[in-house]
Amino acid sequence: MQKNFVLSTTDRHSKARRGQLTTAHGVIDTPAFMPIGTQGTVKAVTPRELRELDAQIILGNTYHLFVRPGLDVIKHFGGLHNFMNWDGPILTDSGGYQIFSLAKLRKITDGGVEFQNHIDGARAFISPEIAMEIQAALGGDIAMALDECVPYPCEYDYAAQSAELTTRWAKRCLEWKRRNGETAKRGLADSPDRRIADSMLFGIVQGATFDDLRKQSAQAIVDLDFDGYAIGGVSVGEPEEEMMRAVESAEPFLPRDKSRYAMGLGTPPQLLEMIARGMDMFDCVLPTRLARNGTAFTTTGTLNLKNAQFALDKSPIEENCACDACREFSRGYIRHLIKAEEILGLRLITLHNLHSYLNLMKRARTEIESGTFDQFRKAFVAGYKTRDPMMVE
Amino acid sequence: MQKNFVLSTTDRHSKARRGQLTTAHGVIDTPAFMPIGTQGTVKAVTPRELRELDAQIILGNTYHLFVRPGLDVIKHFGGLHNFMNWDGPILTDSGGYQIFSLAKLRKITDGGVEFQNHIDGARAFISPEIAMEIQAALGGDIAMALDECVPYPCEYDYAAQSAELTTRWAKRCLEWKRRNGETAKRGLADSPDRRIADSMLFGIVQGATFDDLRKQSAQAIVDLDFDGYAIGGVSVGEPEEEMMRAVESAEPFLPRDKSRYAMGLGTPPQLLEMIARGMDMFDCVLPTRLARNGTAFTTTGTLNLKNAQFALDKSPIEENCACDACREFSRGYIRHLIKAEEILGLRLITLHNLHSYLNLMKRARTEIESGTFDQFRKAFVAGYKTRDPMMVE
Repeated sequence: MQKNFVLSTTDRHSKARRGQLTTAHGVIDTPAFMPIGTQGTVKAVTPRELRELDAQIILGNTYHLFVRPGLDVIKHFGGLHNFMNWDGPILTDSGGYQIFSLAKLRKITDGGVEFQNHIDGARAFISPEIAMEIQAALGGDIAMALDECVPYPCEYDYAAQSAELTTRWAKRCLEWKRRNGETAKRGLADSPDRRIADSMLFGIVQGATFDDLRKQSAQAIVDLDFDGYAIGGVSVGEPEEEMMRAVESAEPFLPRDKSRYAMGLGTPPQLLEMIARGMDMFDCVLPTRLARNGTAFTTTGTLNLKNAQFALDKSPIEENCACDACREFSRGYIRHLIKAEEILGLRLITLHNLHSYLNLMKRARTEIESGTFDQFRKAFVAGYKTRDPMMVE
Repeated sequence: MQKNFVLSTTDRHSKARRGQLTTAHGVIDTPAFMPIGTQGTVKAVTPRELRELDAQIILGNTYHLFVRPGLDVIKHFGGLHNFMNWDGPILTDSGGYQIFSLAKLRKITDGGVEFQNHIDGARAFISPEIAMEIQAALGGDIAMALDECVPYPCEYDYAAQSAELTTRWAKRCLEWKRRNGETAKRGLADSPDRRIADSMLFGIVQGATFDDLRKQSAQAIVDLDFDGYAIGGVSVGEPEEEMMRAVESAEPFLPRDKSRYAMGLGTPPQLLEMIARGMDMFDCVLPTRLARNGTAFTTTGTLNLKNAQFALDKSPIEENCACDACREFSRGYIRHLIKAEEILGLRLITLHNLHSYLNLMKRARTEIESGTFDQFRKAFVAGYKTRDPMMVE
């Protein structure tokens, strides 16, 4: 496998890393935040706006796209990049997490997962190989191995069996990729099939909240030799300390020269804590989801813009913020829009929140380069007033 | 009163007119379409997008803004332009139409209208003078006199009395403006109060579907000498021929050197028919409202993008359309977004529909200048396949 990830700086006071991940659609500076494009769009945002926000990679949800519009449609349009008109890097998840959190009547066997989708209840079956086929059809730059994501809390025995199943599935995904990647190299240069050969595959570490299982899972997954590694099964309802520990247990076993992706989290302080623990990539629904509820992220915590206190407030969501929402509109105006259920209100908060997350990563990169990341992290976390990520002040 | 409207070309084969209306916030080329910014935003669109669409003027709804966020808020922000960050011309309606269509428990007397708003049921009273005060606080460039808009169908006697009431109210609005405009001229240069002096006031012709009442109303309103004239009480459910006749009955009594605004309509063919009957300005919710339902306007009719036939369609909403939605996205992708209830779907159709309406006006202006408007109108109307404006193919 070619070398996709280059580490340029490592922090002396923490495990923070500054790197670059090269994909077929461009380079990603890490630490990186990936806005989530669940159904073929980052909610309420155009690709042009994503470019203006300096988003370097977005995430596409395999399960959602498989259910609707369906693979035939995406294939017809030549893959997800063409379909949604986004020419930057895309990471596709395996669909596993959504099958376990959204779909109904799941039946898990060694072969794969049988489920009924949450839209029309149609039955479907996804195996590690099918998850790879679907992701190949989507044509993303980074695919994820199919895993089982167990809920919190989870019994030790089930977590142990499940992590082993995830390892067996991971191996099958890798085998599928090696087999089909070779075939694809002989295909047309720009076909989605050909893109399988150029794409990367990341393995996922599981093991719930058990240190030894996290360690075993990390070792087993790393032994298989993926292009990058993700920590899955975190941010599924466990206390924040458990989440940190799950990452700390697995991290020492991850190779330095591959990117590390902490899946599905978190708040701004959590991202900095994860960077300090050696994580490089993140995805999270919070900036877009909370925006739709009128909640804005700032460097000192969240603001619920529905609150009456903002009605006459002429200041922007955040002073000195360079996003379009802050340069052009007041809190009072945005509050009015949200109260009146105007789409422009959630558009503006979504822009601000994505800018806020992306800018935090940019800042983290600069601080790592300057050797001041750990001071920055401590000051940021200490100054951040909102503790509960879902708390609306 | 200063001369705000300059007529540059009149069509030899119809009553179509090409003109320019100068306001405190810029020049409007007529015929002009005004996107509707009901609650301080054109639904789902930013001011920047409106500028990119070449929208030269937008409409603000006095009733909606009076109810929410309320006048104190708008005054605190220095008027509607500042509040919503739109520096182009704004026309505010009088609030009358919404009181008659949305509010509850209305009681109309010569003094004004008492009503309960549709949001929290709070009682309020609007007189012609109060309608002017509210519009002065909003600080738009063109204010409308308070009128009574009768429903369709309407008895002759009620329509006659109502048109006379509208005339008495129109006179009081004009008197209020003369009185307060003089005072305002001595005020601060950029205060909202001062803007009353710079703003225009349009009178509204009523008379329901009765030719003699339309004629009498037009004469009475024109005698009062407004900055421009509107035809109200049209597009309230009457057959299209009645709507055309209402305008034809009033138009000969409107002065050539003032702008004419046909309120609250209509489909693209109706706009061209209205231009051919001597109308200059239009506002209509159709392009934004139908967009939210997945319906796109084209030069040959509407498309319901929810339809399965578009699932694999790689073409844009409309071939050769210069809007961002058509330059960057396919019907198939937009259909997926609408089916998946993604906000980006209605954003893209809204952009296209507004572009479509604004571009039709641009085309009409060019055709009038070239002396070919009437041919253009006939060909466009003949080629337009959707007859019912609300019809979803």
